[in-house]
Amino acid sequence: MQATPFETVTTIRFRHCDPAGIVFYPRYFELINDLVETWFETGVGVSFHELHVARRMGIPTVSVQCDFRAVSRWDDRLRQRLHLTRLGNASLQAQVEFAGDAGDVRLCAHIVLVTIDLDTMRSAPLPQDMRAAMQRYLIPSADAACA
Amino acid sequence: MQATPFETVTTIRFRHCDPAGIVFYPRYFELINDLVETWFETGVGVSFHELHVARRMGIPTVSVQCDFRAVSRWDDRLRQRLHLTRLGNASLQAQVEFAGDAGDVRLCAHIVLVTIDLDTMRSAPLPQDMRAAMQRYLIPSADAACA
Amino acid sequence: MQATPFETVTTIRFRHCDPAGIVFYPRYFELINDLVETWFETGVGVSFHELHVARRMGIPTVSVQCDFRAVSRWDDRLRQRLHLTRLGNASLQAQVEFAGDAGDVRLCAHIVLVTIDLDTMRSAPLPQDMRAAMQRYLIPSADAACA
Amino acid sequence: MQATPFETVTTIRFRHCDPAGIVFYPRYFELINDLVETWFETGVGVSFHELHVARRMGIPTVSVQCDFRAVSRWDDRLRQRLHLTRLGNASLQAQVEFAGDAGDVRLCAHIVLVTIDLDTMRSAPLPQDMRAAMQRYLIPSADAACA
Repeated sequence: MQATPFETVTTIRFRHCDPAGIVFYPRYFELINDLVETWFETGVGVSFHELHVARRMGIPTVSVQCDFRAVSRWDDRLRQRLHLTRLGNASLQAQVEFAGDAGDVRLCAHIVLVTIDLDTMRSAPLPQDMRAAMQRYLIPSADAACA
Repeated sequence: MQATPFETVTTIRFRHCDPAGIVFYPRYFELINDLVETWFETGVGVSFHELHVARRMGIPTVSVQCDFRAVSRWDDRLRQRLHLTRLGNASLQAQVEFAGDAGDVRLCAHIVLVTIDLDTMRSAPLPQDMRAAMQRYLIPSADAACA
Repeated sequence: MQATPFETVTTIRFRHCDPAGIVFYPRYFELINDLVETWFETGVGVSFHELHVARRMGIPTVSVQCDFRAVSRWDDRLRQRLHLTRLGNASLQAQVEFAGDAGDVRLCAHIVLVTIDLDTMRSAPLPQDMRAAMQRYLIPSADAACA
Repeated sequence: MQATPFETVTTIRFRHCDPAGIVFYPRYFELINDLVETWFETGVGVSFHELHVARRMGIPTVSVQCDFRAVSRWDDRLRQRLHLTRLGNASLQAQVEFAGDAGDVRLCAHIVLVTIDLDTMRSAPLPQDMRAAMQRYLIPSADAACA
């Protein structure tokens, strides 16, 4: 099966915007967090809640690199894409792209997540079922990067 | 000792404001929550953290009534006042007033908080030392209300 | 046509919850604000954005009364209902109810919104097309109140 | 005069923390934004508000790189440091470090801000008085980096 990015659409709400009428950048990270949660639930098939509560596994973000290429305004519709660039034993690297209706990139982020055992708070390997489900989002080549 | 309101000063930040340049009302409740936390730590002498972690006691807000009388804008300095209108066995009623430099009331809120045992999640009496410390903020008479 | 509440469903996310694992109450007001925005767009047929930008009309919340009847936890699915209890010339009174899957009420709120002209910042009558669309959500009788 | 980082102290509040009891990472960016605002007001001598409203100049964040080295918990006291690593004609590069009481680094971020004219929304040079005031925070050498 051809690997493809996970994709959702969202609309910028009033509460995301600052007095300049554009997205206040910390709100973008709430949107990225929502996208990751949705990807786990819909794309990977294991909800964040199940992961934390039933499997006692956490998946904190340990690194973020984000370029804000163009502003987003209230009521803009954004296409949100996520794919993996690396799938390690106990860590993931993902690329996130937000773009407007015309495909114009607003934000390009690279995030690193690690899997931990919530009881010991130590690194723990990604479960095999999740790793298998994540393969379809793994696009290591650089040219999949934010256009 | 004469009972007096607890008072702090805060400044409206960029992140509190919406595209209209005024405080987005859910942010006011974050400010009210901060005021209550600061009152516990500074006025009552028991921090929220000590209360929750060392004493295993929670103090959820169970009711809020709030009138937004005038808008607050970015960079406005607000005088925040809190006093108790009722001190029950396992509940508090507090009045919160935010006003501008000219004393003009921006917000008048009445909140009800209850004390619970975090291990049983049931109602638990307010500890005696905290009750004693709270007496100096108890102004039951109606004329202490938001001007 | 029989008046009925406007209804949506939402799921409590990680970012809504506090260290006790329950919804941090200021986040409920963000959810209420989202519900009102969605109601305008889907139920009334005029988006908040169109209202503000094209019609130059604002609709600030001037009063909130909210009882938090039971806690909501991460991953809870909430049924959100909104209906009008009063439809004035330049103001609305709405009742908002959040309930769990079993119909158990978590939150019951009454909010008052006023319509203003954004150029003069003064009260302005609700436009006729919006008033007409809102009629189907007007249930003045008390027994429609949060169960 | 020896260049030194700008430094403030803050305490992690209940509202910054997630169900795991640690700072929810988008909240760190609100704290970084607050630090930058405080630095402008106290360190540079021109408040964000004056900059935006009186001078009609914006200073958006265009890039963020942040490593979260260790978790911060509710009630932790953090020492927040900011210094410039580059001072361009119409852009700044700053390094931000949050550390615990023992000097243990929690977060190390590099942010890029650009100055724009709010009327044209185009790049605009940093005013001379601000550039002069910023010199004392310019520490280009790499060894000033997060320990």
